[in-house]
Amino acid sequence: MKWMRFRHGGREALGRLDGDQVEVFTGDLFASPEPTGERLPVAEIEWLIPCLPGKMIGLWNNFNAAAEKNGWGRPAEPLYFLKAASSFAAHGQGIRQPAAYDGRVMYEGELAIVIGRTASAVSVADAPSCIFGYTCANDVTALELLTRDPSFPQWTRAKSFDTFGVFGPVIETDLDVASASVRTRVGGRERQNYPLADMTFPPAELVSRISFDMTLHPGDVILCGTSVGALPMKPGTAVEVEIDGIGVLSNVYAG
Amino acid sequence: MKWMRFRHGGREALGRLDGDQVEVFTGDLFASPEPTGERLPVAEIEWLIPCLPGKMIGLWNNFNAAAEKNGWGRPAEPLYFLKAASSFAAHGQGIRQPAAYDGRVMYEGELAIVIGRTASAVSVADAPSCIFGYTCANDVTALELLTRDPSFPQWTRAKSFDTFGVFGPVIETDLDVASASVRTRVGGRERQNYPLADMTFPPAELVSRISFDMTLHPGDVILCGTSVGALPMKPGTAVEVEIDGIGVLSNVYAG
Repeated sequence: MKWMRFRHGGREALGRLDGDQVEVFTGDLFASPEPTGERLPVAEIEWLIPCLPGKMIGLWNNFNAAAEKNGWGRPAEPLYFLKAASSFAAHGQGIRQPAAYDGRVMYEGELAIVIGRTASAVSVADAPSCIFGYTCANDVTALELLTRDPSFPQWTRAKSFDTFGVFGPVIETDLDVASASVRTRVGGRERQNYPLADMTFPPAELVSRISFDMTLHPGDVILCGTSVGALPMKPGTAVEVEIDGIGVLSNVYAG
Repeated sequence: MKWMRFRHGGREALGRLDGDQVEVFTGDLFASPEPTGERLPVAEIEWLIPCLPGKMIGLWNNFNAAAEKNGWGRPAEPLYFLKAASSFAAHGQGIRQPAAYDGRVMYEGELAIVIGRTASAVSVADAPSCIFGYTCANDVTALELLTRDPSFPQWTRAKSFDTFGVFGPVIETDLDVASASVRTRVGGRERQNYPLADMTFPPAELVSRISFDMTLHPGDVILCGTSVGALPMKPGTAVEVEIDGIGVLSNVYAG
C-alpha cells in the first residue's frame, strides 16, 4: 500500500494512493487509520511530506560501491547524523539555496526507512516488525560546509538547511528492498543507478543497531545513505529520485 | 516568570512556579496560556521537560576560556550539532549508560535558549524578540565515541543517547544573561563555575545566525555550549547544573 499526506481545499489529510486517485483516511497512520469513503483525483491535491518524523537520521558511508570508489574503509558500525525537522520538504516543493551559504549544493538519492512501532534495543530478527514502510529521499547537502571549519565537520548544518530534507511522495508498505534500485535523474539525465542490495548495513540491521543508541518512534525516518553518482546541482534543475515499487520524488533546485 | 511542565495524578500540564507552589495553566506556552486557578505544592508533582522542542541544537566551542584552555581557535561561525528528541530528559530523571557503549559519559553544564517566536533570517537586533526565555541544560556526551571512527566524528550519536538531552527545571523569561554564571556540582563538589559573559557568540547572535540556516520554531532549544570543567561522571553520581535566576537542574547518572 502507498500512504501519503496531502493538502486539499485548505485541509491537510492522510490518504492512500490508488492509481490516479487518493482514498482519504482519518486517524493516525501508525494506529489503524479509517477510510472516510471520499476519493480525490491526484491532480487536484498538493503533496505533503508523507509522515511527520520526530527525527530524521541520515547514514554516511553505507554503500560498498561508494566506499570503494572514494577509498573509504568499511565502517565497523553505522555512522550517522541528524537532519532538522525544519529542513523537511515534500514531493514537488522547491529546494532553496541557503541564505548564508553560496557554495555548491549536492543531491543524494536515497532509500528512506519509516518506523512504524516504538523500537528500543530490538534484535535484527525483530527489527522488520518495527519498519512501517519505505519512501524515496533526497538528502540535500551543502557540500563545502562539511569541511569549511577544519576543527569541526559541519554535518548537521550542511544537511539541515530549510528544504534540504526531501522525502516522499508515498510510503510503500510492501517493498522488496533487496531487489530494488535507486535511480536519480538530474535535468532528465540519469546520474545515479545503484542496487539497494549493496548496503553495508541493510534496513533491519540499521534499525536494530540504532535502536540500541536511541529509541525509535513511529514516523521516525532513517535515510540509508547514498551510493556513487551524487553531484552538485545547477540552479533551475529538476531532480527525480525513483525507487522501483515506491515511485518518483521530484523537486526543482531553485538555486 | 518561571514556566514548567509537570505530571500530577496521571495528567500532564503546564504551570508557573511560584515559590513552593505551581500555578496550573492551560493552552500553549507560546500563545498566551490561561491560568486555571488551581495551585499544587511543588513537592507533589513530577517534573517534565519544560517544553517540547522540535529540535535541540548544541554548540561546540562557544566559550573563550574553554577555547584557550584546549588550544582551539576562535570559530568564525557557530559550530553546532543536533540532539535527538528521544534523548530529552527532565529534572530529576536518571541519566542512563547506553546499551551499546561502555565508555566514559561526560556532563556539560550549559545555558539553554528557548525560542518563543518563529525566526527565519532575523537580524541580531530582532533576535531577542524571538527568545522566550532560558533554562539549564546538561549536554551529556559519550566522550570516546566522538573520535572512535577516524573517518567520521560521531557528534550526533555521542550526544543523542536516550536521557542525554537533559534540560529544565523551568524556563525563566527574565534573565540577565550577561551577569549570570553556570555552576555545575558533581557529587556535591563544584566542577564548573563560568560566566555567561564569556560566550563567543552570545544568545542574540546565535539565534540570528542559526536562523539564516534553518527556521527556528517556538519551543526549539539552543544549548549555548559549555566552558572549562566538563568531565566524565562516575556511576551513581548526582549532577546539578545551577544558573543564577533560573534554578537547579538535578539528575543522577545511574551508570
